[in-house]
Amino acid sequence: MEIISENRAFGGVQGVYRHASAATGGDMTFGLFLPPQAAKSKVPVLWYLSGLTCTHENAMVKAGAQAHAAQNGLALIFPDTSPRGDGVADDDAFDMGQGAGFYVNATQAPWAPHFRMWDYVTEDLPALVFDHFSLDAARQAITGHSMGGHGALTMAMGCGDRFASASAFAPIAHPTGSDWGRKQLAGYLGDAPATWARHDASIQMRETGFNGPVLVDQGGADQFLDLLMPERLADAMAARRQAGTFRMQPGYDHSYFFVASFMRDHVQFHAEALRAR
Amino acid sequence: MEIISENRAFGGVQGVYRHASAATGGDMTFGLFLPPQAAKSKVPVLWYLSGLTCTHENAMVKAGAQAHAAQNGLALIFPDTSPRGDGVADDDAFDMGQGAGFYVNATQAPWAPHFRMWDYVTEDLPALVFDHFSLDAARQAITGHSMGGHGALTMAMGCGDRFASASAFAPIAHPTGSDWGRKQLAGYLGDAPATWARHDASIQMRETGFNGPVLVDQGGADQFLDLLMPERLADAMAARRQAGTFRMQPGYDHSYFFVASFMRDHVQFHAEALRAR
Repeated sequence: MEIISENRAFGGVQGVYRHASAATGGDMTFGLFLPPQAAKSKVPVLWYLSGLTCTHENAMVKAGAQAHAAQNGLALIFPDTSPRGDGVADDDAFDMGQGAGFYVNATQAPWAPHFRMWDYVTEDLPALVFDHFSLDAARQAITGHSMGGHGALTMAMGCGDRFASASAFAPIAHPTGSDWGRKQLAGYLGDAPATWARHDASIQMRETGFNGPVLVDQGGADQFLDLLMPERLADAMAARRQAGTFRMQPGYDHSYFFVASFMRDHVQFHAEALRAR
Repeated sequence: MEIISENRAFGGVQGVYRHASAATGGDMTFGLFLPPQAAKSKVPVLWYLSGLTCTHENAMVKAGAQAHAAQNGLALIFPDTSPRGDGVADDDAFDMGQGAGFYVNATQAPWAPHFRMWDYVTEDLPALVFDHFSLDAARQAITGHSMGGHGALTMAMGCGDRFASASAFAPIAHPTGSDWGRKQLAGYLGDAPATWARHDASIQMRETGFNGPVLVDQGGADQFLDLLMPERLADAMAARRQAGTFRMQPGYDHSYFFVASFMRDHVQFHAEALRAR
């Protein structure tokens, strides 16, 4: 593992690291914030998954999460959103290929060898960070924005009891029914809708739900509401009797100003769930 | 005045606007955060001046100031750091020309017609924003980072009683004695060191001081300590018996992670001074 940068922040350290990933078959870069409490003992972890076009960096510099993480003694991990590099397939569209891994394991050419973001985030990167840093693998929570909200919710529901709590900012809530999803799932997984269901938070919510609290924030003036389909997730959460909260925030759009505005609530929500573990 | 964007943030609005500036003879872009309190009455203003290479955008998305401004009912203004555009002179160096206006009124070619950032920030932009937005001109404070810390301190001391309080993050504290200053002051103002003194915070602090409280934070692991020369400012503040606080923060570097880490303290410091007006 190579250190790209380490900056003191809020009494802790905001680092950026690069490592060879078996899951994606190439080098991956991620951000990790260690709060001051990590100097004394292992700290709980909040995973933050980013949206379309993002790298590890966007949320790390724009979401303002470190202040709240330091206050609550949580580490933050910011994975990249796809494999990258010259040998990695890409697409001209911003919502396919590099920067748009959709948190699935691709089975179709030309994506299959590298686009294995599900395994990267749930297996490969955890193995690395829990080995190298002062982090408590028994206390993990997950959140994300847009495509990353989709990733956070589907991974929370798909990984048994690993995550104590799950939240999302404006998640792509029903990708199997949306232009943000159908193209990508068909491209990465093939024309086999049966394999898509585990990558649809609304379907998963309806079928299995999540064994822990859920918090979802959605901007009421989000320019992508038709693609995000939050009503399907709200419906499924209520139908499932899922322990959780779905909040429609009037006037907020899809930007990081929206994410930053409610980041404190999300970090405190996860901190509380993690304290109960 | 043209609206470039307006995003809901922390219950208020983060806007970006463009306007024709008489001071710089061209279009200028700035960011302005209006807290929720501005919907009911005029709110006090905290000016934030940015550093070398920055536009209006860097602090607006990276410094995390809006959360604290909303909590304290302050507006934030983020001016650009220089005139820009095809007709505007520039230099190959990152620390001269566009992105590096140094908050002076240039008198020398090729800079003189456009590089009038002192007048832009102290006259032109105030006239516009106090006319267009729900802001209280009687309650202003100023801060900044690096070159912007230099601008904030020199403008605070050079504008009589306009600003209730002044603060800086890692300011260029003694430009007349530093490679971050001598080249620029000579270029913009000519080889006339007598005209440079009012643009040197350490000299101004020693000669006149500031009629209000001052807060300065400096990272102890800042990679530019030799250019910033904070010891000259600390010396001058103490010699002047300036009401204020100079804090050396061990381990912090020059990045926005440093700025964000202490932004809450600065906003609260200014809010308290503004409440006393």
